[in-house]
Amino acid sequence: MPIYTPPTEDMQYLLHDVLKISASDIPGYAELDPDFTGAILGEAGKLAAEVLAPLNATGDAEGCHWDNGVVRTPKGFKDAYDQICAGGWIGLDMPGEVGGQNMPYLINSAVGELFVSANMAFNMYQGLSHGAMSAILAHGSDQQKATYVPKMVAGTWSGTMNLTEPQCGTDLGLIRTRAEPQVDGSYAITGTKIWISAGEHDLTENIVHLVLARIPGGPEGIKGISLFIVPKFLPDEDGNPGRRNALMCGGLEHKMGIHANATCVMNYDGATGFLVGEEHKGMRAMFTMMNEARLGVGLQGYAQGAVAYQNALAFAQERLQGRALGDPSNPEGPADPILVHPDVRRNLMDQKSFVEGARALTFWGAQMIDRAHRMQDPDAEAMISLLTPVIKGFLTDKGFETTVLAQQTYGGTGFTRAAGAEQFVRDARITMIYEGTNGVQSLDLVGRKIGQNGGKALMAFFDMVKSFAKAHEADEALKEGFLDPLKAASKDLQAAAMYFMAEGMKSPANALAGSYDFMHLFGHVCLGLMWSKMAVASQAALAAGDDPRAFHEAKLATGRYYMARQLPATALHLARIRSGAEPVMALDAANF
Amino acid sequence: MPIYTPPTEDMQYLLHDVLKISASDIPGYAELDPDFTGAILGEAGKLAAEVLAPLNATGDAEGCHWDNGVVRTPKGFKDAYDQICAGGWIGLDMPGEVGGQNMPYLINSAVGELFVSANMAFNMYQGLSHGAMSAILAHGSDQQKATYVPKMVAGTWSGTMNLTEPQCGTDLGLIRTRAEPQVDGSYAITGTKIWISAGEHDLTENIVHLVLARIPGGPEGIKGISLFIVPKFLPDEDGNPGRRNALMCGGLEHKMGIHANATCVMNYDGATGFLVGEEHKGMRAMFTMMNEARLGVGLQGYAQGAVAYQNALAFAQERLQGRALGDPSNPEGPADPILVHPDVRRNLMDQKSFVEGARALTFWGAQMIDRAHRMQDPDAEAMISLLTPVIKGFLTDKGFETTVLAQQTYGGTGFTRAAGAEQFVRDARITMIYEGTNGVQSLDLVGRKIGQNGGKALMAFFDMVKSFAKAHEADEALKEGFLDPLKAASKDLQAAAMYFMAEGMKSPANALAGSYDFMHLFGHVCLGLMWSKMAVASQAALAAGDDPRAFHEAKLATGRYYMARQLPATALHLARIRSGAEPVMALDAANF
Repeated sequence: MPIYTPPTEDMQYLLHDVLKISASDIPGYAELDPDFTGAILGEAGKLAAEVLAPLNATGDAEGCHWDNGVVRTPKGFKDAYDQICAGGWIGLDMPGEVGGQNMPYLINSAVGELFVSANMAFNMYQGLSHGAMSAILAHGSDQQKATYVPKMVAGTWSGTMNLTEPQCGTDLGLIRTRAEPQVDGSYAITGTKIWISAGEHDLTENIVHLVLARIPGGPEGIKGISLFIVPKFLPDEDGNPGRRNALMCGGLEHKMGIHANATCVMNYDGATGFLVGEEHKGMRAMFTMMNEARLGVGLQGYAQGAVAYQNALAFAQERLQGRALGDPSNPEGPADPILVHPDVRRNLMDQKSFVEGARALTFWGAQMIDRAHRMQDPDAEAMISLLTPVIKGFLTDKGFETTVLAQQTYGGTGFTRAAGAEQFVRDARITMIYEGTNGVQSLDLVGRKIGQNGGKALMAFFDMVKSFAKAHEADEALKEGFLDPLKAASKDLQAAAMYFMAEGMKSPANALAGSYDFMHLFGHVCLGLMWSKMAVASQAALAAGDDPRAFHEAKLATGRYYMARQLPATALHLARIRSGAEPVMALDAANF
Repeated sequence: MPIYTPPTEDMQYLLHDVLKISASDIPGYAELDPDFTGAILGEAGKLAAEVLAPLNATGDAEGCHWDNGVVRTPKGFKDAYDQICAGGWIGLDMPGEVGGQNMPYLINSAVGELFVSANMAFNMYQGLSHGAMSAILAHGSDQQKATYVPKMVAGTWSGTMNLTEPQCGTDLGLIRTRAEPQVDGSYAITGTKIWISAGEHDLTENIVHLVLARIPGGPEGIKGISLFIVPKFLPDEDGNPGRRNALMCGGLEHKMGIHANATCVMNYDGATGFLVGEEHKGMRAMFTMMNEARLGVGLQGYAQGAVAYQNALAFAQERLQGRALGDPSNPEGPADPILVHPDVRRNLMDQKSFVEGARALTFWGAQMIDRAHRMQDPDAEAMISLLTPVIKGFLTDKGFETTVLAQQTYGGTGFTRAAGAEQFVRDARITMIYEGTNGVQSLDLVGRKIGQNGGKALMAFFDMVKSFAKAHEADEALKEGFLDPLKAASKDLQAAAMYFMAEGMKSPANALAGSYDFMHLFGHVCLGLMWSKMAVASQAALAAGDDPRAFHEAKLATGRYYMARQLPATALHLARIRSGAEPVMALDAANF
């Protein structure tokens, strides 16, 4: 039976020692002192560890069940969901006027990690609502906001995103679902959507589907896509669930993981839908949901790595096999715990150094979102827009890899269901795929983001790394272990960007063939920067005599590990990028 | 529904164009002309594609069922197993005197890939027999050989390996299973063994368990372990199954993958066992099974990658999303097949270049085993002994990675059970764990193999690479794409070995902390050598005007991809190795 211990100490460290949030000028941050954030994380952690985590393995084993359009979630889910609603967790960062707590997105992210680590499949039921609420708040009418958002904040209604169809995933221009205008101003929605997470379930009294569809006569391709609210039950005059809409869950997907989340085929048969925003401008609204969802998926990736690591470590501390080099660490026992072996350490340090670095990047990114949204800061907006595909792609690839490493720590036990390690692998796997595969993320990064506004955000990123290094150049203790490798890695990233500029001009394939490596290169530089920031914070804490010393010493040791053993990957990615499109495209399609 | 097309063309190319086996001086190779091997591979491929592959998904879904000690395999397995027996496939490389076909191990490996790609879980039932037969042939008495091996060759009986116990996996010195000597010369075996693949099933009339146990009064640790034959039914005077032995399958493991193979808890309750070889020398006999099993597991790793790639490619050729850069490749259709996109190519080329390189390494290694066994060549024996952990560790890590890449090719479809891609991932995952985790492989490599006989085999490997490069140095067409990167990679491997020699002296942890990276570094150099050998063969074929030209051109393009985009990983592994033990061991165990 897997364990889950909320990493609140590490979160508090990031919020207060590294990001120093209560000293920030972002509106709402001043009240976030350590006692306050500690209380929130404590409550959320309790819910995660005591209510959600115990349902993770049972939910996986039981799965969801479909019967003639009705979906039953696993035992215990409804009760747990009601507790999440009662605690006000769903609207944590939603505005007060729709019933939310108006907390910063940063706090929402920290709480999100706790819930996702405890039970990813469960957390998706409310997670999907979040994107739907954001889209309605950003693009909906006042009446739509008033009708739908407070119910979703309360959790009595939930939300979904309906994009994919059998013939179209990445290429949304191929959408066929039709939206016929009706005399009353509504639309009749007809079509089939697939892979709709939480599309049907028994946790809420109503489900608010946000559906991409095509209004006849509009432009072809993605320029003719509109967004609609299509509720399962049409709200009556009092705003309560009224008439059943003409939509139905046609079946559930049988999947590798996240068994406890209902992945639905949704059939719309002339269902009543309400236009969100303008006709044919659906893609813009969709991207409001999508960008938020991408950051959320990046969080899922490392959150699965985090809980997997925690369990692998516990196993390595208990499992006795073989003896340490030199003196035994457990001389009275039949053998030493496997944690003594260098290669087991290597494996665990890979996990630990990624998870803590990823958590830092996620929190730092969340702070940037708060700066962008709460201060209307266009530079912060541009930076998080640049980093979104990196956070989604890198943190999910490495998060999955971390679950695989964690499973490996166990040896044979890791392959058995009882240990739970294999479920983390199966659940984490989807994060590399949904909300745009990681290949699509890399195209977004290289094909769109790095060149936006003449590359302004990318230049700002390089400047930020440079300023950081410059600000600490007098610190000899940081130089060899942190600043030198960070500068080398950042130089590799710049060289890759230069290569794209020079060679991408000659042929865009030269850039696109290296896009995946660029995304990873970028991710490593981000984590190198995070570890350097943490090193500064922990050195300062040690100099100030802060307790616990062991915590800060561990941070420095873990950071040095990342810089020495992970960051050199940037040179490999650069080498691959510089090999260009030729090796990738040389083989004729017919000769594969 | 996944497809399986036997890669017989590629196998024939390796056997005849690259290894040129019928010109070899190894006994039994002269008769292996292309017609002969083509006929064998054709028959085996037919069985794999038409009988085994259709049972792969159904076997996974149904799994094995245990009822009071009796295990039922999935529907269709018994019939398929009987066809394997009837074809004489189980004893393919066993000597004629025990009823085998006396084929080289090389042919056995090629056939093995076909069967494993088609249905890994199924193939383990007969695969485990192979190691058991080899152990009895190498260490058993004449009577044991006569009693057990012909039945196992015929497939009417099957074999198992019983090593692991709840408290001991890697550290076999902790074994507790007891073997009490009896007056009739047999032993009474008592204890519990876990994770016994094919430990109980309904495919054969008898099961021959090879069990490691401890004879009371013997030395402690692994020096007091003996090997026993413990049959499910004790052979009667005519050699037929007689009295039921006191052993029982206590249950099945619920696992991430290979559901169709029964992974058993085996309880021995004073069961009658027969000593194999000498008392307390069981580890030697166990290693006969184990080394063979490790090569077999390496093969499983890439074989799962091979079938996963094949399916991913088919999907990429059919799925229409987006348009190619430049001119559309499918202008009449709604979109182009995703194979046109550079990042999809990158993904597929990673898969293809690994699978074909791994197949070459496996065949080349199998030929070395034939040289070692059929010619008693100690140099070949030393070389394959050195390479065994590389083949097991590298080919399974990368094989698994390939199944993950293949799954990624599909996008969301890859996460659904129906596509089959996720089963390849789940099944391949075990190969990194069993028969010694890949961490243990790397310790075997660095802690034992590279230093054996003063490093003679390792030096011979470097000489082989050097001689190869020298023999082709005049070939300008090979230089940039193949020989230069091969030489650079081999230099990295030598530098890593030098580092171990110099720093490992100071502290063995410096070598052990880099062992995993060394195993991967070595694996890349091996595949670089294989691709260079294939490049020589394909260039010669093109120069000679051999058909099909497209096949040889594809080989060269795929090889150049590996050399340009995968081989540079050696520098990263070297950098990690050179960072030494300090970053890995710095964190105190108590501060994790």
